[in-house]
Amino acid sequence: MIYGGIEAGGTKWVCAIGDGPGNLRETVTFPTTTPTETIGHAAGFFTRAEGLAAVGVGSFGPIDVRRSSPTWGSITTTPKAGWAHTDVVSALGLALGLPVAFDTDVNAAALGEQRWGAAIGLETFCYVTVGTGIGGGGLSNGRLLHGLLHPEVGHMRIPHDRVRDPFEGACPYHGDCFEGLASGEAIRQRWGRPAEELDDPAVWELEAEYLALGLVNLVCTLSPQRIILGGGVMKQPLLLGLVRARVRELLAGYVAAPELNEEIDTYVVAPALGDHAGVLGAIELARRAALDPDL
Amino acid sequence: MIYGGIEAGGTKWVCAIGDGPGNLRETVTFPTTTPTETIGHAAGFFTRAEGLAAVGVGSFGPIDVRRSSPTWGSITTTPKAGWAHTDVVSALGLALGLPVAFDTDVNAAALGEQRWGAAIGLETFCYVTVGTGIGGGGLSNGRLLHGLLHPEVGHMRIPHDRVRDPFEGACPYHGDCFEGLASGEAIRQRWGRPAEELDDPAVWELEAEYLALGLVNLVCTLSPQRIILGGGVMKQPLLLGLVRARVRELLAGYVAAPELNEEIDTYVVAPALGDHAGVLGAIELARRAALDPDL
Repeated sequence: MIYGGIEAGGTKWVCAIGDGPGNLRETVTFPTTTPTETIGHAAGFFTRAEGLAAVGVGSFGPIDVRRSSPTWGSITTTPKAGWAHTDVVSALGLALGLPVAFDTDVNAAALGEQRWGAAIGLETFCYVTVGTGIGGGGLSNGRLLHGLLHPEVGHMRIPHDRVRDPFEGACPYHGDCFEGLASGEAIRQRWGRPAEELDDPAVWELEAEYLALGLVNLVCTLSPQRIILGGGVMKQPLLLGLVRARVRELLAGYVAAPELNEEIDTYVVAPALGDHAGVLGAIELARRAALDPDL
Repeated sequence: MIYGGIEAGGTKWVCAIGDGPGNLRETVTFPTTTPTETIGHAAGFFTRAEGLAAVGVGSFGPIDVRRSSPTWGSITTTPKAGWAHTDVVSALGLALGLPVAFDTDVNAAALGEQRWGAAIGLETFCYVTVGTGIGGGGLSNGRLLHGLLHPEVGHMRIPHDRVRDPFEGACPYHGDCFEGLASGEAIRQRWGRPAEELDDPAVWELEAEYLALGLVNLVCTLSPQRIILGGGVMKQPLLLGLVRARVRELLAGYVAAPELNEEIDTYVVAPALGDHAGVLGAIELARRAALDPDL
């Protein structure tokens, strides 16, 4: 059986056909324009494939993931122009005549990492991506994190020392929330240049401080067995090590598990699937939907 | 079938026999002294009861809740003198010859509220108690929150405006973490008197600010369908309303659910079981253990 997967981002969509990292037969990437054009582009790509059992979508949000909701399968209140209240699942399902699975981009990536990557065998873990924004998903006791809606990890509140960092924060809703302080957009606004052009140690020490504070809050709320930390900002080579050290310091030995102390390097890790975690996770969502369309 | 329940706190243990809030046949409360004396006291109480199917324990922590762990059923690294590495389950099981279920006090209370209280029918919700310390537990997709260990909600980091509140924080590990700023002990140290003697509005506005920040972080990480907020500090009559208003303000409409906006009064609620949530939850833990001793 082969499946279709879509990593539906706010900037670009990545579509792939296959059944895992060893067999991605075809992929395509195109910019996110209008819903009609973008969904049409994806539908056209999958229509040309033969024998697909289902399609999975890991989407930017906020989205409606409640199976009993009349608007299940939609992007809901996104500020992205033209995309609010877009019923992605119905549009794809009508075009393709296939089961369509739907979850957040970060829950999909978590699922991909659980099936093939850095979270094999884990039941409770988080996947956090630090790019233009910050998103987080994961599983608790083997089930994808859903509830009232889905996590909005980027909008946690964390300490902000305005003496050390007078920047007001970049979140249009909350100012200096986690995303407002630590996203790629926050870095760009604070320092006046994009993250990839910055190599002053002070930039990355401050970034590590904020990321560690966010991760500590995940440790304290979900008790994950591991945290996978990806996204474009994490491509700075020194950052992951700085974050690990600071998470350990901030927890100060309170949670007496080796994973949060001497084994911290195995606890906060990069995605094993790299930039493919999202689209591979969408393929895993599709596989599950083919097995049980009501999942 | 009747069951035994223990709310095993660091200050006192509450033991009860029954099968729910309508049938609590006998309860006893005694101070937490040494492990041998305290566990012996509980064992003696349950030994005199006839026909118990199992005993459940909701314990202060940190505790080991990993069923596959050799130290499952123990209180682990608690700073409470004499209690570190106390195997509560083995001691009770040997004394009583009954299945013994074990979880955190706050996970037990969450379970009690789900069975009989303010969380009936909910699959994903949190129970937070604000007393001498702050603890939090709950369920995600119908399963009690476990992972690497269990949540330590009180040790999240939240914003601390040192101009408004120069108090350094009361947590011996982290200073101004959530518990360090908002627990009953933090209130006592900051204002020089216990919470129940304080009625200055500034006291309760600051307290509501910190509690709302902590609750916002739960909303952003777990996406609970409801948050139950109990404990001695919440007995201040105005506090719950202040917290609700501030949670809504802090989220600023970002999460577009009525529960977090106009219906906030039904979202952040007091425990329906009041001070009995913990011991009733322990009885529910016992009922589950009697049905499936490997649970």
